[in-house]
Amino acid sequence: MKKFAVVLAGCGVYDGAEIHEATLSLWAIMKHGAEYEVFAPDKPQMHVVNHLTGQVSGETRNVLVESARIARGRIRPLEDYDPAGFDALLMPGGFGVAKNLCDFAVKGDAMSVDPQVERALRATAAAGKPIGALCIAPVILSRLFGEVRLTLGQDPGAASAVERMGSRHVMTTHGDVVTDERHKIFTTPCYMLDANILQIAEGAENIVKAILASLR
Amino acid sequence: MKKFAVVLAGCGVYDGAEIHEATLSLWAIMKHGAEYEVFAPDKPQMHVVNHLTGQVSGETRNVLVESARIARGRIRPLEDYDPAGFDALLMPGGFGVAKNLCDFAVKGDAMSVDPQVERALRATAAAGKPIGALCIAPVILSRLFGEVRLTLGQDPGAASAVERMGSRHVMTTHGDVVTDERHKIFTTPCYMLDANILQIAEGAENIVKAILASLR
Repeated sequence: MKKFAVVLAGCGVYDGAEIHEATLSLWAIMKHGAEYEVFAPDKPQMHVVNHLTGQVSGETRNVLVESARIARGRIRPLEDYDPAGFDALLMPGGFGVAKNLCDFAVKGDAMSVDPQVERALRATAAAGKPIGALCIAPVILSRLFGEVRLTLGQDPGAASAVERMGSRHVMTTHGDVVTDERHKIFTTPCYMLDANILQIAEGAENIVKAILASLR
Repeated sequence: MKKFAVVLAGCGVYDGAEIHEATLSLWAIMKHGAEYEVFAPDKPQMHVVNHLTGQVSGETRNVLVESARIARGRIRPLEDYDPAGFDALLMPGGFGVAKNLCDFAVKGDAMSVDPQVERALRATAAAGKPIGALCIAPVILSRLFGEVRLTLGQDPGAASAVERMGSRHVMTTHGDVVTDERHKIFTTPCYMLDANILQIAEGAENIVKAILASLR
């Protein structure tokens, strides 16, 4: 059975992992006959957003502890991740990816990647294993691997940011998956588009199917 | 198009709404051609549980604000709920149901129901509209409506608690839905069993399908 490492960035679209993308990624992995283990960096969130008002609150929360809500407590610190135990790595989106796993939300194309996230992704690539990224998560792959073909949906600002980092942006709609065969990188837009939850399920299924097909 | 009110109890299995059950309920509603609106009571959570360690933390969080994470901010206070605008009401599970929507987690069959939750459910029943409950959520229907046929899976303690409250417990396995036609109450066990995320999706789909079929 093929095994995915799923990397989460918290719990909630505005400061963590987008919950529908994360949940439906786990569902899609199991639906297509694979299994998963969930990881997140053990570090403070950039901030906490009240999801009712959209305002930043004064609270402090930890990325691993909040991600554990989505994983029902079955989660490990990202520093424990070793690509030898996995066939692929998948990153759902949400603003937490752009705030906690890198600083794209603040710095745009001058962004840097969290060192643990960088180590996990570079080790996966070095092992010749595929990486999938939903929603905004492809920006991290753009920064690390430069000349990558990827998608962030149809947002011109996000597209030009990854192009300034050396990547080729492909415009996509709901459920589309862009494959970079040389880097074994798979991307799909999900909530980078004005999507509904069925379209998120479709995107999650399609990226999981494309990654599994590449492993055959 | 049929419309469900979905009532959440926070965000996270140990102190709120179970995230997979909540997300897959929204997905199942849309997949079967209906639409939804999400509600939660605007009140403090009973407590906050660190989902990595299982320990109660010293934090204070609000049920509506945390539920908004699952709803991506599109949520209304439960006090705004009027059954006239809906065809059915659905409650996903999670310990938050037994802690925030009622006090079953502390008091067992001596439990009482949050007044806003009671008002919403009694008004739905009085309007002759169906109510669905996943996982532990059926305990609330047992307390309010007494002689109801329902399921909490296979847990003997939970089953005897609802029987002491006057209900008839039916043993079930993954994906089963128990229907009480007289009360228009639908229940399915989900994570009351040792389930995986595919089985949660199956339970959510089956309860949504059963409710929609009853509306035809």
